[in-house]
Amino acid sequence: MEKIAKFQELLKRNDIDVYIICTSDEHFDEYLPENFKLIKYLSNFSGENATLIVTQNEAALWVDGRFFIQAENEIAGTSIKLMKMGEHNVPTVFEYLNNFSYDIFNLGFDGKLVSKKFIDEVKENVSRATLIPFEVMDRIWEDRPVLETKLIYTLPSFFSGDSFEQKLEQVKKQMSKLHTDVFILSKLEDQAWLYNLRGSDIDYTEVFLAFTVISKENVDLFVDNKKINDEIKKYLSENKINVHDYEDFYSFLSTFNKNKVLIDPNYINYSTFQAISVNNEIVEANNPTDLLKAIKNDVEIVNTKNAHIKDGVAMVKAIYYMYNHIDELDEISFANYLDTERSKQKGFIDLSFATISAFRDNAALPHYQPKEETNHRFNNEEKTFFLVDSGGHYADGTTDITRTFALGEVSEEMRLHYTHVLKSAISLAKAVFIKGTTGPMLDMIAREPMWRMGLNYNHGTGHGVGHVLAVHEGPQSISYRSKSITPLEPGMITTDEPGIYIEGKYGIRIENELLCVEAQDNSFGKFYKFEIITFCPIDTKAIDTTMLSTEEREWLNEYHKSVFNKLSPYLTKEEKDWLKEATQEI
Amino acid sequence: MEKIAKFQELLKRNDIDVYIICTSDEHFDEYLPENFKLIKYLSNFSGENATLIVTQNEAALWVDGRFFIQAENEIAGTSIKLMKMGEHNVPTVFEYLNNFSYDIFNLGFDGKLVSKKFIDEVKENVSRATLIPFEVMDRIWEDRPVLETKLIYTLPSFFSGDSFEQKLEQVKKQMSKLHTDVFILSKLEDQAWLYNLRGSDIDYTEVFLAFTVISKENVDLFVDNKKINDEIKKYLSENKINVHDYEDFYSFLSTFNKNKVLIDPNYINYSTFQAISVNNEIVEANNPTDLLKAIKNDVEIVNTKNAHIKDGVAMVKAIYYMYNHIDELDEISFANYLDTERSKQKGFIDLSFATISAFRDNAALPHYQPKEETNHRFNNEEKTFFLVDSGGHYADGTTDITRTFALGEVSEEMRLHYTHVLKSAISLAKAVFIKGTTGPMLDMIAREPMWRMGLNYNHGTGHGVGHVLAVHEGPQSISYRSKSITPLEPGMITTDEPGIYIEGKYGIRIENELLCVEAQDNSFGKFYKFEIITFCPIDTKAIDTTMLSTEEREWLNEYHKSVFNKLSPYLTKEEKDWLKEATQEI
Repeated sequence: MEKIAKFQELLKRNDIDVYIICTSDEHFDEYLPENFKLIKYLSNFSGENATLIVTQNEAALWVDGRFFIQAENEIAGTSIKLMKMGEHNVPTVFEYLNNFSYDIFNLGFDGKLVSKKFIDEVKENVSRATLIPFEVMDRIWEDRPVLETKLIYTLPSFFSGDSFEQKLEQVKKQMSKLHTDVFILSKLEDQAWLYNLRGSDIDYTEVFLAFTVISKENVDLFVDNKKINDEIKKYLSENKINVHDYEDFYSFLSTFNKNKVLIDPNYINYSTFQAISVNNEIVEANNPTDLLKAIKNDVEIVNTKNAHIKDGVAMVKAIYYMYNHIDELDEISFANYLDTERSKQKGFIDLSFATISAFRDNAALPHYQPKEETNHRFNNEEKTFFLVDSGGHYADGTTDITRTFALGEVSEEMRLHYTHVLKSAISLAKAVFIKGTTGPMLDMIAREPMWRMGLNYNHGTGHGVGHVLAVHEGPQSISYRSKSITPLEPGMITTDEPGIYIEGKYGIRIENELLCVEAQDNSFGKFYKFEIITFCPIDTKAIDTTMLSTEEREWLNEYHKSVFNKLSPYLTKEEKDWLKEATQEI
Repeated sequence: MEKIAKFQELLKRNDIDVYIICTSDEHFDEYLPENFKLIKYLSNFSGENATLIVTQNEAALWVDGRFFIQAENEIAGTSIKLMKMGEHNVPTVFEYLNNFSYDIFNLGFDGKLVSKKFIDEVKENVSRATLIPFEVMDRIWEDRPVLETKLIYTLPSFFSGDSFEQKLEQVKKQMSKLHTDVFILSKLEDQAWLYNLRGSDIDYTEVFLAFTVISKENVDLFVDNKKINDEIKKYLSENKINVHDYEDFYSFLSTFNKNKVLIDPNYINYSTFQAISVNNEIVEANNPTDLLKAIKNDVEIVNTKNAHIKDGVAMVKAIYYMYNHIDELDEISFANYLDTERSKQKGFIDLSFATISAFRDNAALPHYQPKEETNHRFNNEEKTFFLVDSGGHYADGTTDITRTFALGEVSEEMRLHYTHVLKSAISLAKAVFIKGTTGPMLDMIAREPMWRMGLNYNHGTGHGVGHVLAVHEGPQSISYRSKSITPLEPGMITTDEPGIYIEGKYGIRIENELLCVEAQDNSFGKFYKFEIITFCPIDTKAIDTTMLSTEEREWLNEYHKSVFNKLSPYLTKEEKDWLKEATQEI
């Protein structure tokens, strides 16, 4: 019997007309632990973002543009209908639910796996549904995997700067500003940041599964005891952190009464909200930890800069190797070579995401990851580009970098596009802006050189980068579509990654990380600017220098000079010679 | 007995602990009719924006930075305490109310003179207050003025383009999109736009006092019958618009029952909300008329362009006169001369705001208006600027233009500042941007040349301009502080008016109006740009050409060529010769 059919039997037995599943765990991370990939179990679809709706007689899977082809292949053979989000005549999830034939119907969902915010939206948009919290994971998933227990480790203060105590004080200040006396924190990165602890429960993300409840008197941490060794136990006890078993979190919430409780509806699951809202007053706001951790302290900044030097060295070593072995390499073998170079760097912990190594048309998919079926061999005969987007977690910090190379000859169109990606990257890197400027505003500065030529790209220009946490973090977002209202602040680290993508032909992206710093403070206001902290040569082969202004050319030459100075001490004679050549003035 | 003391007696008799008054009428216009200037009556303060709070034993007036000096002078001699908004240790209105000594207290206000939105904010921020709607205007204002009855006039279709019927259809479409069947429209400009009628009830704004209720079957207009002549009566009847007396509006609302009623909480007064919310469901949204009227139709665009030619001619005639009579002129006499030149143009109706004619330090106040006490005589011996910001309503359209002139020698600082104001103005005028770009994002493009030099100005860069309505209109706003989320759309007309202000020395502002038009539509997206519709020379004396890029110089030369071509046919030989000189290439 098909899995979906079995699921439908369960729904019938429990009088549930429709059941909705999102790709999420209890904490709403970017990557899912294996034992939460219920959509993959039911549908075979392995992409990162989807919604599955199962009724008593049909099932449909919503995926976004990135995953149309992948989903089509993966769900083939199941009874599931593919819903290509954004395509003409494809209803949204809410439209689909509103078209449901019954006057009123029972809509099931797992309260632990949907956010408070999501249920708010369902209530607002699907008025005919009666909401039925109903957990199905263990009822329908045969042989559901059990996660390996991975030890939690400390990020010592010479890497993290502020102590737990200092961070707790900052958080409590924000709690009192919001007139709240209890704060429930479910977001894993924010907890890891707060405790100066890290874990390995989620791919590419240095976090551990946990819940935290901060009240005026106590800090209560809910975590699997087996992940804590004696050293960590001692550290937690010294810091007066009460450790409970992870499973006891929900029942613990019932002990609160008449409190003003702060939650972030985007990151608190509905079951948590239900449990705490019975006897308490709820205040909804962004997790105050979000902004606190985005503004890096001086120790984090110094260390992150070190991490970028190591990362640049690994990149240059791999690029040098690539130029000397083009005929032998393909996307996968290059990614492996680069990953190995990173792993050799001191303090390396993990990749910060799966390396994107994309040749020719594959690079036109911004989220491409090389697979055996799509793997292209490199060559320098075609007029096309090779794009590599990669990064690492080191004990000192996290990196994210993209470079694009013209291995063969360059067409006029390639030159126009490559030069304008570079112009956009420089434009943002050189920006000076007044205190209060937000990401969407800065995005205008990045895109302006492209828009002038009628060019654009369908992704954000920049995201925050966590400090040995997740490579993507908020709250700032340099994206005109993001509606982010968080101003850039000194200490924030944000990527600068414009691109151009020509379907079937090539993709171009140049990505550096920018540290926000003070520029000047005078009677007109306080002004900020960026300091570039990524060091790796930018391929000059496809640049049309006539399209660059004097300032842009000077910026690139200045940048390349600093790349050589920073990286050359760590390179072999041959690599150094190559870098000298690659960073020469244009 | 002082007016405030008498007011306090009234409050005591009615058991009201605190009473709050804002500068507003029932429709929340930018300018107040004389008979609604209650704050001026009570405090003598005549500025456009203030909040007065009267308790049983004190009174305090909140004003913003523009009005600190004026308020200090005007309220001298009263018992009212001045609250300088934004200054250190000055509580906000809500903080003041929250510091009020009673556990709970009665807070009085006139429900007709505060918006629904404002009361929402009071409820959210001042939890201890019991709200008491209580009208005081006629109880405390002796000899309250009676407004002169001014006739309503039509804006014929060869000026307005779309007919009332067409506009009503657009409005009804938006109503149904919001699932509403009744729409209460209180904003005067939107009603004037809808009916293609204009009036003269509010200074510088071509509107008439009215309320409109649109339901599926009816359009009900509430207006003083004496303002309607037979022609208008016929027009209204032909269009099946039911005319009621203005006074009957509030009682009419009680006839609605079980409707879904659309209101804009920013523009509906609290009494209206109270009256309609009893038996109906309320849907809060921006007035759909706001965006509809902001996107000008082709007829409005063609006519507005004509209005700008006339306006440019009036400007050039006045500037030519100024250069030949510098020794005889002062701020007031120049303003009068310019106003007269405007009034001579065909189809002139009124100024679109009081002319700002500001010499030397007076120009450092962006909202300065010449008065006898502050009036400066012109001279060409000082190193300073003369700034004139003015505009007119013509039957064909409305204008708003600022020019700044260096009458005497120019210092290095003046040159730096003037050139950067020009660079900012050009930067926005030349912008190309993708569909969806909002005003705050575009503001970045305008300010970027200044921010790079650590320069800035404390006002928005651009506002929408009404078509023979109000010179300031939304919903678009090119201001990074405005948080406007309205994208610019083809047909919108917006000002481009960067400036620099040096306290005690001078002010610089250059203002043009920009029409949003399509740029290109390709596989990357749909792109828009601006067409400049203001024609008047920009003084070149203070430009440092070495600070201009080639593109900026070409833009200015191209612009000046078009200024000469557009305006010269309407000038005398002498004026034309002067304009030739003023628009020569740099």
